[in-house]
Amino acid sequence: MPVVRATRSVHFSAAHRLYRQDWSDEKNTEVFGDCSNPNWHGHNYDLDVTVEGPIDPETGFVMDLKLLKGVVGDRVVVDVDHRNLNTEVDWLTGINPTTENLVVAIWERIAGSLSPGVRLARIVLHETARNSVEYSGPAGANIDE
Amino acid sequence: MPVVRATRSVHFSAAHRLYRQDWSDEKNTEVFGDCSNPNWHGHNYDLDVTVEGPIDPETGFVMDLKLLKGVVGDRVVVDVDHRNLNTEVDWLTGINPTTENLVVAIWERIAGSLSPGVRLARIVLHETARNSVEYSGPAGANIDE
Amino acid sequence: MPVVRATRSVHFSAAHRLYRQDWSDEKNTEVFGDCSNPNWHGHNYDLDVTVEGPIDPETGFVMDLKLLKGVVGDRVVVDVDHRNLNTEVDWLTGINPTTENLVVAIWERIAGSLSPGVRLARIVLHETARNSVEYSGPAGANIDE
Amino acid sequence: MPVVRATRSVHFSAAHRLYRQDWSDEKNTEVFGDCSNPNWHGHNYDLDVTVEGPIDPETGFVMDLKLLKGVVGDRVVVDVDHRNLNTEVDWLTGINPTTENLVVAIWERIAGSLSPGVRLARIVLHETARNSVEYSGPAGANIDE
Amino acid sequence: MPVVRATRSVHFSAAHRLYRQDWSDEKNTEVFGDCSNPNWHGHNYDLDVTVEGPIDPETGFVMDLKLLKGVVGDRVVVDVDHRNLNTEVDWLTGINPTTENLVVAIWERIAGSLSPGVRLARIVLHETARNSVEYSGPAGANIDE
Amino acid sequence: MPVVRATRSVHFSAAHRLYRQDWSDEKNTEVFGDCSNPNWHGHNYDLDVTVEGPIDPETGFVMDLKLLKGVVGDRVVVDVDHRNLNTEVDWLTGINPTTENLVVAIWERIAGSLSPGVRLARIVLHETARNSVEYSGPAGANIDE
Repeated sequence: MPVVRATRSVHFSAAHRLYRQDWSDEKNTEVFGDCSNPNWHGHNYDLDVTVEGPIDPETGFVMDLKLLKGVVGDRVVVDVDHRNLNTEVDWLTGINPTTENLVVAIWERIAGSLSPGVRLARIVLHETARNSVEYSGPAGANIDE
Repeated sequence: MPVVRATRSVHFSAAHRLYRQDWSDEKNTEVFGDCSNPNWHGHNYDLDVTVEGPIDPETGFVMDLKLLKGVVGDRVVVDVDHRNLNTEVDWLTGINPTTENLVVAIWERIAGSLSPGVRLARIVLHETARNSVEYSGPAGANIDE
Repeated sequence: MPVVRATRSVHFSAAHRLYRQDWSDEKNTEVFGDCSNPNWHGHNYDLDVTVEGPIDPETGFVMDLKLLKGVVGDRVVVDVDHRNLNTEVDWLTGINPTTENLVVAIWERIAGSLSPGVRLARIVLHETARNSVEYSGPAGANIDE
Repeated sequence: MPVVRATRSVHFSAAHRLYRQDWSDEKNTEVFGDCSNPNWHGHNYDLDVTVEGPIDPETGFVMDLKLLKGVVGDRVVVDVDHRNLNTEVDWLTGINPTTENLVVAIWERIAGSLSPGVRLARIVLHETARNSVEYSGPAGANIDE
Repeated sequence: MPVVRATRSVHFSAAHRLYRQDWSDEKNTEVFGDCSNPNWHGHNYDLDVTVEGPIDPETGFVMDLKLLKGVVGDRVVVDVDHRNLNTEVDWLTGINPTTENLVVAIWERIAGSLSPGVRLARIVLHETARNSVEYSGPAGANIDE
Repeated sequence: MPVVRATRSVHFSAAHRLYRQDWSDEKNTEVFGDCSNPNWHGHNYDLDVTVEGPIDPETGFVMDLKLLKGVVGDRVVVDVDHRNLNTEVDWLTGINPTTENLVVAIWERIAGSLSPGVRLARIVLHETARNSVEYSGPAGANIDE
């Protein structure tokens, strides 16, 4: 069967600051500028989750996108929507919430929860209309075994 | 000369919570739900500012939109971008930062700073891609004197 | 209190054909062209619902947009999403589902279900990215009594 | 019958400069900045044309939007798309092509060519994603006679 | 010459249902939910077609995108726009019109009709603003011979 | 550290014509059609610049996107915004400004100016909402040495 990629987009709104606890506020401001404002700021994040696999000849789906929406909702959105990414999310504890770090953490939340025979291919996280980060998994993840 | 409306759109990212200081956290949560999370959340706000007036026969402009961008930047964006709308903005002190209250406060920041002969006609503030609030000024503001 | 307009956008996907039962298929095709294909076609509709009223000094809302989303969901979206607009919607029976006729029918479904003191101000229904229809209610509806 | 507004959006790409022939290049640059570059610049313009009228009980249309697309195509787009707005368009001769002046000139090209019983209600011309101008016709045009 | 990818986007509106003729309506509903509504539903599809090849030193094009638009129009859009994807399209006969199956069928319609030296690199079909499927051709298609 | 891709989008408006100086105007028109209009036309260009590298464990960035914005602004946007791409840009001299040729020239302006350890991965240049070209660098550029 042909191998295709299917994408589901979801949205969440959250507060954060770019911040390292082992740095002074001064150092944080020097490196991160306004993004390190101690009183927080926030974004509407758009998250595009792409899975890859052969088309199931039974259903014509790679993976039912309603199921994918459910996985992303349960494993990611419910934890981050209307939340503070620095202080309220278990699986982000100790992580400086840059878009780069967020996209890797989100990958780890989703990669193991897909339908059999389907692999996570790409995640794109848009912080604003002009800034985004894309992750295709750890090196070697693209090799089919 | 024909009377037209010109719109300039700007963007800012900010943290907030819906919250009344004279209510308990329980009451705030009951009324505002997740939007009252004490640890904040945030948004990418899109702000469309519309001015109205006759076309200046000299320039062909209602008002140079670079000037309008400057007014909105100096009077609004510099104060709210990468800021906490509940705690860091002088002109929002004591205001529960619903989109409705924000759009009225922003109106008051801009209305008096336009070019002569030009009036502020409409402000639209988009909190998310699906929610927005529009304000056309206090009753009577549409009457030309 | 200032009077503002708040908008909530929702989406639905539906099949339809432009068609009058009292006309022959030939006449329908002559007037409506491809839009009258007897085997149907369909659209992703975007619906923007705008309410107007004074800002509630208690909440800072015109009307809680989650409530508005609920009203539009219960009175409109649940009936039309993934449905055939010509044959499956009680409140569209006998109506040729042009965007014009749809927007008036949707108005009548929503106008009586808003919070006290709030009036329905405008509905915009986008049939495609390039075609939309806007309705502000029956003549006289803009007069405050 | 209910009165509604129907909008058709079209697109064109054109070159222009903001420029008055009775001013020196220095004066033009002083007032218009980069927009007066003598070597031209250009834009992808988005044009939203809105007509208003009662819904025709025969067709369920205010005006067939394919006809409206045809009118806008024949009267506007064919003349301006891939053209120089300062030098190549008869009906813009002697007009400084600000968005304000363009929208008024486009109004005059379309207003007399609509279906009987339909009036031109609003034109919005977007010069960029952040700048647009809206025109609702000459004073008094909103009065039905 | 450098090798680049050029993309042309087109749009069509169609009706469909997810449905296998060898399954009962009950089974279809169990697997496909509302998407299997026997009375059809529909979508505005956005189709992005990407070709790859060296830049032609004569023209500076990979392939004239007007030609590509023509190929996609003649081989795909004319057959599916304002049509029923289950019953009216020869080259979809017997195919359950999931986005996955559609994108593969569209690939086969286009891949052999490109300019010499140009290969079809990727097709993305957007069923809604939140769901899309991407296909890069059968395994091995990326190998230049 | 995980390797990710970060994208910054910028915008510029410019005039151009598709044109070879060694061809007659007739030949230029025959091949390029309206795009070769000797009086120019123009576009709002959207440019997406994507860099790739390991996440810096110090900052959580691949490359500070404010720095990337600065590089693209200094090396590209300042030279092309509100300019004529055929006659006013040093680094486009003698180049027929098709989107394909522009994206390769822009690549060469940026590739050598990134932060250490970061490589330019992809540039997408959108000429209109429906036409774009993507470049991932000269052959071999994807090989890490």
